Amino acid sequence: MDMDTEPNLDETVHSLTDLLESGQDEEFMTAFSNLHEFEKGQAYAAMPEGPREVAWRVMDDETLASVFDNLELEPQQEVELLEEMPPQKGAKILQLMYADNEADLLQAMSARQVATYLSLMPRQEAAEMRRLINYEDQTAGALMATEYLAVQTGQTVDEVLKQVKQQASDAESIIYVYVVDAQHHLVGVTSLRDLLTHPDEMNIDEITNTRVVSVKAGDDQHDVAQIVADYNFFSIPVTDDDNRLLGIVTVDDIVDVIDEEAVGEYSGLAAVDVSQTDDSPWHSALKRAPWLLGLMLLGLLTAAVIGLFEKDIYRAPVLAVFLTLITGTAGNAGTQSLALAIRGLSDGSEKNRWRALLSELCASLMIAALAGLVIGLIMGLWFGSDMMGLALGLAMALAILASSLLGYFIPVCLSKFGLDPAFANGPLLTTLSDLSAVFIYFWLVQEFLTYFIGR
Amino acid sequence: MDMDTEPNLDETVHSLTDLLESGQDEEFMTAFSNLHEFEKGQAYAAMPEGPREVAWRVMDDETLASVFDNLELEPQQEVELLEEMPPQKGAKILQLMYADNEADLLQAMSARQVATYLSLMPRQEAAEMRRLINYEDQTAGALMATEYLAVQTGQTVDEVLKQVKQQASDAESIIYVYVVDAQHHLVGVTSLRDLLTHPDEMNIDEITNTRVVSVKAGDDQHDVAQIVADYNFFSIPVTDDDNRLLGIVTVDDIVDVIDEEAVGEYSGLAAVDVSQTDDSPWHSALKRAPWLLGLMLLGLLTAAVIGLFEKDIYRAPVLAVFLTLITGTAGNAGTQSLALAIRGLSDGSEKNRWRALLSELCASLMIAALAGLVIGLIMGLWFGSDMMGLALGLAMALAILASSLLGYFIPVCLSKFGLDPAFANGPLLTTLSDLSAVFIYFWLVQEFLTYFIGR
Repeated sequence: MDMDTEPNLDETVHSLTDLLESGQDEEFMTAFSNLHEFEKGQAYAAMPEGPREVAWRVMDDETLASVFDNLELEPQQEVELLEEMPPQKGAKILQLMYADNEADLLQAMSARQVATYLSLMPRQEAAEMRRLINYEDQTAGALMATEYLAVQTGQTVDEVLKQVKQQASDAESIIYVYVVDAQHHLVGVTSLRDLLTHPDEMNIDEITNTRVVSVKAGDDQHDVAQIVADYNFFSIPVTDDDNRLLGIVTVDDIVDVIDEEAVGEYSGLAAVDVSQTDDSPWHSALKRAPWLLGLMLLGLLTAAVIGLFEKDIYRAPVLAVFLTLITGTAGNAGTQSLALAIRGLSDGSEKNRWRALLSELCASLMIAALAGLVIGLIMGLWFGSDMMGLALGLAMALAILASSLLGYFIPVCLSKFGLDPAFANGPLLTTLSDLSAVFIYFWLVQEFLTYFIGR
Repeated sequence: MDMDTEPNLDETVHSLTDLLESGQDEEFMTAFSNLHEFEKGQAYAAMPEGPREVAWRVMDDETLASVFDNLELEPQQEVELLEEMPPQKGAKILQLMYADNEADLLQAMSARQVATYLSLMPRQEAAEMRRLINYEDQTAGALMATEYLAVQTGQTVDEVLKQVKQQASDAESIIYVYVVDAQHHLVGVTSLRDLLTHPDEMNIDEITNTRVVSVKAGDDQHDVAQIVADYNFFSIPVTDDDNRLLGIVTVDDIVDVIDEEAVGEYSGLAAVDVSQTDDSPWHSALKRAPWLLGLMLLGLLTAAVIGLFEKDIYRAPVLAVFLTLITGTAGNAGTQSLALAIRGLSDGSEKNRWRALLSELCASLMIAALAGLVIGLIMGLWFGSDMMGLALGLAMALAILASSLLGYFIPVCLSKFGLDPAFANGPLLTTLSDLSAVFIYFWLVQEFLTYFIGR
């Protein structure tokens, strides 16, 4: 890999800092401007605060705005970097950033901070920002950039190419050129490629695709990501309810959405936030403890249930031998069902979703029967008792079935009540599954108790 | 959302099929060409085989190749669709497809099929394909398209724009224009945006960025995806070991890679493949059964360990009460550690990785101490016995610590031996954790047995 750059972030920061501290401002600017946008952001954030203060005084506003556009930190951390400058300077940088990134920063600020920065902006810019930051988090509106290429219908290729050249340096994506009517309604899309490969005098209406796929500002980012991924778009237009063009969502933001969602789902399944691996041990423990201790208290309930059957265990201590086998296997089957249900809920239409759940239920039934049969046979032969085999096989099958049902219906119920189905994590499931398996096991073996005594 | 189209796939297919069956070929072509590329692929694949045979006879080769470029099915299924045509036609379609998609299809074929199709292609195309299909799966070489924009150094903006216009209709991405020397070594990159916004007579060397980030054909697709995501690139050039330009990987393929990897990691954690939700129950059960039954047999070992301590349980049946509480909590803590370790191994540099693991180990130590303290206090008060509290608290802390160590070191060891760390899934971990927790618990309480008798 041609990555001489990324592993050497420390080195880059070191040499940049040296230049700043020895007053070689011009040499610093040359070295800095040779970096990629992503690296500029990384280096800026990694500098000690002293040299960074020199850095933002030395840089012109456009360069600094582009650094902030490419920071890729948590918005709160980016706000802290912005707050290192006087508010007047910060407001200027914000205005020069892409609207979607600017809105992200404003959304991470306190109300007082937002008021300060907006009061330092021209009235029109402030009004647009107030509109943008009102879009709900995780919607197309919150993701979109307002720097796009749009031209009026009915012009020639040549006329449009001239406008594209003018707008190109501001636009976030120049692959698609959106075509709008006089009221800014989205009527179609053409591409820079088509403009370049057709004669200058052609009317663009002839190369405008009017079946343009767009999303509404309030649409969920997950659905937007799915469409962009399916259609292999580089960007997708966002409109209001009257089909007026508001902005575009570009594929680089979609990549981030997919990445974040994946990390979120994965974290959910394991009941731990895996997104930050550079936490201090203390913070990491604090993040992990709540679920773990909460579930431990829930586990006390399972212990109490076993306590109810202590007399049976005294008469037949062998009962304790099969406890973890049954709770463990049921928990594993439930975890599989849970993962299938959560993924099933996150994609596909409503109809397919129910068909898939029903199909998975049948699969669980087969799995339960198979596992019950295998354990019944093994135990029957091991202890030389058909009745023990029958009891243990039945208990295993029923415990697996119960755990699988929990695995399916907890996320489905959460989703029905408008909650995120990923809240039903693996550890919660196994803990509830332990409870149901212990109940089923002891309730069932009571009927067969005589066969277990003296084993 | 402006998606009148996707939910109506059935309707679209129905009306297209009607047109074909009633011989209205032209009306079919009009209706079909109005669809988006993604929808064309969906509709073509969803048609019954009869009408589809009419469809591929009616369509021109370019349209058909674009349909195959956009099928988004498993390569095996796409090969089946290709095999519905005579080999001569299939070979033509393959040649008209983008090289990366063509290579995907050839890689999914039997050796005999590959030989047939390659023998029907011009010698040069066949040679290039032989080279492409030799790149290992999941590398940059296997992902890359060979249709890119490349121009020689030293030309003017005007000269380059003319070449771009000529090449534009074939290239997979026209955002970046790669600059190469006479031996096709990659020397820099410029963008269509820069070409459009600079004077015609300017030498492109002035707007060529020579610090171009590229990957080697053998690089892992995961690393390529990370770079594209970090740098917000729309495409990245792929070179051979001598830095000669071979092709480009575009962001739409990166979106698919990230999506697939996320589903893979999620499936790994739950020990079930969640990527296909429309399986028959029978297939779904078959996919889930191996892990589940295998782990059940491993669980028998845990049962056997408990069996060793049956005498202790007979003397103090209360011992069984705490079994699931301790195995369950230890399993939950281990699952968190496992998820953190797997994610930690998949990104970051080697140095950060070890620091992160060490930090997580300290966190586990704190968590174990905390959980042990809580359960020790609760049990001490509940049973009015300090010694029982001490024994249970110690057992809980040690079991959590052991499970967390398993959670970290299983994926680390797998990774050291060159295996995928995600192979260490949640259910495997909880089953092994049950075993270690049961061992620790009974070994420890033996020392305290007198305090448990008669409770």
